[in-house]
Amino acid sequence: MANPKAVVLLSGGLDSSTVLAIAKDQGFDCLTLSFDYGQKQRAELDASEKISKAFGAIGHHLLALDVTLFQHSALTDTSIDVPDFAENDQEEIPVTYVPARNTIFLSMALAMAESVGANDIFFGANIVDYSGYPDCRPEYIEAYEKMANLATKAAALGQKMHIHAPLVNLDKTAIIARGLALGVDYSQTVSCYRADDQGRACGYCDSCTFRKKGFADLGVQDPTRYQ
Amino acid sequence: MANPKAVVLLSGGLDSSTVLAIAKDQGFDCLTLSFDYGQKQRAELDASEKISKAFGAIGHHLLALDVTLFQHSALTDTSIDVPDFAENDQEEIPVTYVPARNTIFLSMALAMAESVGANDIFFGANIVDYSGYPDCRPEYIEAYEKMANLATKAAALGQKMHIHAPLVNLDKTAIIARGLALGVDYSQTVSCYRADDQGRACGYCDSCTFRKKGFADLGVQDPTRYQ
Repeated sequence: MANPKAVVLLSGGLDSSTVLAIAKDQGFDCLTLSFDYGQKQRAELDASEKISKAFGAIGHHLLALDVTLFQHSALTDTSIDVPDFAENDQEEIPVTYVPARNTIFLSMALAMAESVGANDIFFGANIVDYSGYPDCRPEYIEAYEKMANLATKAAALGQKMHIHAPLVNLDKTAIIARGLALGVDYSQTVSCYRADDQGRACGYCDSCTFRKKGFADLGVQDPTRYQ
Repeated sequence: MANPKAVVLLSGGLDSSTVLAIAKDQGFDCLTLSFDYGQKQRAELDASEKISKAFGAIGHHLLALDVTLFQHSALTDTSIDVPDFAENDQEEIPVTYVPARNTIFLSMALAMAESVGANDIFFGANIVDYSGYPDCRPEYIEAYEKMANLATKAAALGQKMHIHAPLVNLDKTAIIARGLALGVDYSQTVSCYRADDQGRACGYCDSCTFRKKGFADLGVQDPTRYQ
């Protein structure tokens, strides 16, 4: 019998690359889905393609999204600088928040899943490092799954859709440990919000800071390529 | 005080044009959002722009969506013919169903709403004529609204998002009566799944059949331009 198919949202960063490894390890044939939404760090798009191949995904899709929707985020708006890491108030929503991003990404994944007959979608939502992003919380993910199971023809015909967020409660150290055990080559992944076009990291943004600390806390060498 | 803003999903058809008129009548400043998802009937895109202007929308956006996602629907796949109307089993999902379409459209509208500070999204879901589309049912719309209110920064900060589907339980006759009372010029709207490039309708697809019957049952002249 063929393996079940899954759609995996893959940004090319540490988290989503680990998620791809987990989905593969769980026996899924994976289709990876990346988005060009005008993000300043373009190197993650190349990274996602390489990582998709490295994990033997059965297909990789890069979808362009109109950037005019994603205003007022430091990840897309060239008039807002991505800040260095600061200990944020946990209640505060970071300037790197992109309006409804995960909702749009999951909705595209849902369409793709239904088109290819997949009942499983994987994504790298995580609340430990990203507690300020509303669309990374477990209650959001549950609400999304409930909505998805009312939205599609597949669901109406009894094919339940599962939204998997296997990292949601893991800290960076645990994520890295899991990925290393599954063979993820983290030197290929690009997490930095200010990566250069070779995919080399700045070392100082929120994303770099969490990642660096993860390797340090785990006591393994940080394979990240820095600028 | 300025009017509140609303994002209105506008396909250029009879239903969504009526929804725009309703949103305007409720006192909203409307931003209209249309999608080019590779639909065969291109004339509806021109129609949506005209209708948006006619109702004084404060902005009209046409967003391109990658068509590779929307496979296996007669509305986008040139290898599947749009059928003439047939009395479908109410349980059956039509071949014109597009995977996760409303979920994607609403998610784009959600991003736009958050970007512009709107707390209201209007769309033309209707279960009377489209009982076979899972993503037109009230329970789907409720689940979407619940998810949306967990998804965004605006919601996390207490700005509740409302998803309005004012046509959901109206039949075509009631929709047309409502729109005529609000000044909708239905000769400008394009509902046909097989419209030609002047926006003239075939008269025989599901969409034409429902529309034609609506005007007939209301006892008003059908202003639709036919091929």
